[in-house]
Amino acid sequence: MGLLETTLAKIHPADRNARALAVAHQDRLTKPRGSLGALEDVAVRLAAAAGTCPAPLPVPAALAIFAADHGVHAQGVTPWPQEVTGQMVANFLAGGAVANAFAAQAGASVTVVDVGVATELPPGPGLVVRKVASGTADMTLGPAMTLDQARAAVETGITVAGDLVAAGARCLVTGDMGIANTTASAALICAFTGSDPARATGRGTGVDDATLTRKIETVRRALTVNGLPPDGAGDRPAGAAEALRLLAAVGGLEHAALAGFVLGGAAARVPVILDGVIAGSAALAAAAFSSAAADHCVAGHLSAEPGHAIALAHLGLTPLVDLGLRLGEGTGALLAYPLVAAAARVMHDVATFDSAGVTDKEAQAT
Amino acid sequence: MGLLETTLAKIHPADRNARALAVAHQDRLTKPRGSLGALEDVAVRLAAAAGTCPAPLPVPAALAIFAADHGVHAQGVTPWPQEVTGQMVANFLAGGAVANAFAAQAGASVTVVDVGVATELPPGPGLVVRKVASGTADMTLGPAMTLDQARAAVETGITVAGDLVAAGARCLVTGDMGIANTTASAALICAFTGSDPARATGRGTGVDDATLTRKIETVRRALTVNGLPPDGAGDRPAGAAEALRLLAAVGGLEHAALAGFVLGGAAARVPVILDGVIAGSAALAAAAFSSAAADHCVAGHLSAEPGHAIALAHLGLTPLVDLGLRLGEGTGALLAYPLVAAAARVMHDVATFDSAGVTDKEAQAT
Repeated sequence: MGLLETTLAKIHPADRNARALAVAHQDRLTKPRGSLGALEDVAVRLAAAAGTCPAPLPVPAALAIFAADHGVHAQGVTPWPQEVTGQMVANFLAGGAVANAFAAQAGASVTVVDVGVATELPPGPGLVVRKVASGTADMTLGPAMTLDQARAAVETGITVAGDLVAAGARCLVTGDMGIANTTASAALICAFTGSDPARATGRGTGVDDATLTRKIETVRRALTVNGLPPDGAGDRPAGAAEALRLLAAVGGLEHAALAGFVLGGAAARVPVILDGVIAGSAALAAAAFSSAAADHCVAGHLSAEPGHAIALAHLGLTPLVDLGLRLGEGTGALLAYPLVAAAARVMHDVATFDSAGVTDKEAQAT
Repeated sequence: MGLLETTLAKIHPADRNARALAVAHQDRLTKPRGSLGALEDVAVRLAAAAGTCPAPLPVPAALAIFAADHGVHAQGVTPWPQEVTGQMVANFLAGGAVANAFAAQAGASVTVVDVGVATELPPGPGLVVRKVASGTADMTLGPAMTLDQARAAVETGITVAGDLVAAGARCLVTGDMGIANTTASAALICAFTGSDPARATGRGTGVDDATLTRKIETVRRALTVNGLPPDGAGDRPAGAAEALRLLAAVGGLEHAALAGFVLGGAAARVPVILDGVIAGSAALAAAAFSSAAADHCVAGHLSAEPGHAIALAHLGLTPLVDLGLRLGEGTGALLAYPLVAAAARVMHDVATFDSAGVTDKEAQAT
């Protein structure tokens, strides 16, 4: 068995007992029942995923930004030149990107992984070089990756997750960089959910009407060429072989790595906060690899990209914040991280009605 | 002139020049234009309020929880006994409430101000005793406060804001505790906006249908008794005298103090993050005192209480997060604080396209 298979064997689904304990504990805390809204669900979810109540505090957090290039860039799906991927990697390493500012604010470490940037990057601290290929092939002409490349990228993500957890991380945060990667995300979402490209494809970081039309047709062509016509038939069969096949067909190297990153977090029972549409599409692959993978994920935010809501609905995840972000890099997940940590901390720090000597209206009523 | 008048004289409206500089700076940063969504608006808003670009980092933050009791409790508007206000103050001081957990997570200090709790509280570190009265009078029988009491509570809030800023706070966060205070909030929102009580009144921390009906009728009666019938006529005349009159008629001591807290922050050009419906109704009063007050506020979250959306629309504020919270204490504002800090930090830390050597698609296109 390879690293992928041994990792899949380690993933546990949400623990019912820990979930029940967490629900009961929430109701004893000095606050009106249910008054923390979505954050109560997060705390319960973390306990169920960890298999223990309360869940360990998700502190510290580690952001991994997986960077790669895309052969489909040649189809004119974005106004940004491909070299911006490598330039932004340099910007991350210099601490000058929004993800750096948000990570500093959140107290998260930043690791950048070159899993397939087309240009050669100078080595530097904070850069992990695991280049599976110098970008994918053009998915409108055939598979974007070989199955071996897809597996290598998935296993890279698993390894990075394991290394970060071994170094002390108790929360993993997904990040990505790759010019044209919303095109691959839309294709993956269509491949995994049966959605039509016109519904799942958006303007990414900002394309005009003509480019959007071309982008939708590009996604449609890629699906057809790879034998994945959008037939609206819904879910394709899950399983590792099928997940690898779809990733290889229309994914990106960073998508495959992010799928592995989710699996690695799940195997270690460390929660993974998903960023936007790139992470959402990668999480669809992770969920196809292991149906329990999504139990270990928290959806950080809702991206402005339309495919993201489709992916989250399919995963059964509700995003924590909705701020109209369409940047990527992990920025939306980093914004959600303090909310996740706050939700977890409530279960550790807050007094119960009994312990604080506060009168409980529910207890009074009975 | 009293402290209220000297404070009002110091409040500047949003600075157009700083706003324009902030908008221009956002567009030079290494991210697609507009890709930070609502956080770009926050950063611009902070710069305009501060009158300088970039705005100072809103670090550190200070939460002030204003606690008081309400004579209208006698009308049976909540299942919680009145003594819970004092019990929760003790819980805050012991560090056992959700607000404490969230403040610890956010790195905010916690100050509790007894501006009108009905019970006598033992002195302790972190408790500021400025008891204007032992709770308000029952607003269904006449004004909840005298004008002098309302003014004293407003000036207490101004003083607390000033003291926290003098101690180094660069962001103020509103908190409140007062059993029955969503009833006073609903009445204030109706008084300031002309809304009908049936629209502005909600279930607070959780009341049943019969109690909600009684609560709505209680608000209606309080407005009528105080000569403020909900006629749907919209805004009442603004101005300090009218603001004080409405606060005294149907407000709470913590509402008056929070209105002063907002004014104090605005006068010091330190941003104020508003919590839920209690803060929102107090901010309506602050905006009546000074039309520029809302320029210095950020709406932290959208409360589940229906009057909150009415108040925010009236103030022209958009809430950052919407998590179904209905707890109060400042919890929603504390969750929003890291987002506000992240938005501000972008303006300080993030590289420009020029400085980072990243190709700008907009520059390319032209």
